[in-house]
Amino acid sequence: MSNLPASGKGLLFVMSGPSGTGKGTICGELIKSGNIFLSVSSTTREKRKGEIDGVTYNYTTVDEFEKMIAGGEMLEYAKYGDNYYGTPKKTVTEMLAAGKNVLLEIEPQGAALVKSKMPEAVLLFILPPSARELKKRLCERGRESDEEIAKRLQAAGWELSQAPLYNKMFVNDDLGECVERVGEYISEKTRERAFLDNLIEELQDI
Amino acid sequence: MSNLPASGKGLLFVMSGPSGTGKGTICGELIKSGNIFLSVSSTTREKRKGEIDGVTYNYTTVDEFEKMIAGGEMLEYAKYGDNYYGTPKKTVTEMLAAGKNVLLEIEPQGAALVKSKMPEAVLLFILPPSARELKKRLCERGRESDEEIAKRLQAAGWELSQAPLYNKMFVNDDLGECVERVGEYISEKTRERAFLDNLIEELQDI
Repeated sequence: MSNLPASGKGLLFVMSGPSGTGKGTICGELIKSGNIFLSVSSTTREKRKGEIDGVTYNYTTVDEFEKMIAGGEMLEYAKYGDNYYGTPKKTVTEMLAAGKNVLLEIEPQGAALVKSKMPEAVLLFILPPSARELKKRLCERGRESDEEIAKRLQAAGWELSQAPLYNKMFVNDDLGECVERVGEYISEKTRERAFLDNLIEELQDI
Repeated sequence: MSNLPASGKGLLFVMSGPSGTGKGTICGELIKSGNIFLSVSSTTREKRKGEIDGVTYNYTTVDEFEKMIAGGEMLEYAKYGDNYYGTPKKTVTEMLAAGKNVLLEIEPQGAALVKSKMPEAVLLFILPPSARELKKRLCERGRESDEEIAKRLQAAGWELSQAPLYNKMFVNDDLGECVERVGEYISEKTRERAFLDNLIEELQDI
């Protein structure tokens, strides 16, 4: 297995879940707590009004992005239409080295890629309270056509089938409670890791 | 990612931890609870007095064992001295298919191999309360020489470095409490999986 970061380093958390489970909102709330930091993704798409370079995304060119892919510098990436979206490994490892817990919000294929490259990553999966409620939430957003909603529900089936590969699942029944439970889990993992690091250090001195 | 077993199947748990953490005793207590079943390992070593074929081990020949390795039929295996020890995949998948939770007690390299072949496996790591306590327990067993204890402590360092790759760590400070916590975790994972299976089924009918 791989070598793991030494004592005092942050932990990498990866969050997935079907569209409509509220994972974006959960991530936002967790970031607000200040115990975890979002890794800013890189993209080749054009900056939209209101977006901030280095905050919303790191904007880059297709050439540069493809060079990073070829150089094995992307922890994960995906192409939607003509645009690339992804996470440079360097961004994440620098944050971890600075002792920060890092949060990535990505779909299961990207999560599997991250896990294969950084096996110590902790994978979190957000579940809807029921299939009926998931459909209701997708409909209520009012953003998508019936056809798009059907597509999203179909995608949800595949995504849910990947949940057993995650470290932990959380049901988002009540947003506040769910955020609290995820936050507690992040704290638990942080304590667990600190205990382990301490044990390994103690063992070297024995 | 891989296809996962359908609804109603058992879960595979893999337990590791340095020598002296009491994982053998913990496994024994968990099995007694009746909520989880130990997969009987296969071995090529001779049956010792008091051992029972099919209970202690499944005894087999080197020829047969090597045929199973070559056929990709072993979930994990290791060779100690002249003898092979390992887990046939078939034994485990049959128990899971029968709805049983299965427990394997293996070292981290074997655990990583199992995880790569059955990524839905849940990995549990048992930690000693302190390095000092680990050394004390190894000495108190009185089985090993000072040299062997030093070797075990060195091996413990490497094993502990693999703990972040596990789903969850448990500190064995008090045996009864530790068994209870592991048991609760197994129940939690079982409920989590039942909820997910139900959700996936519900989604198909929507």
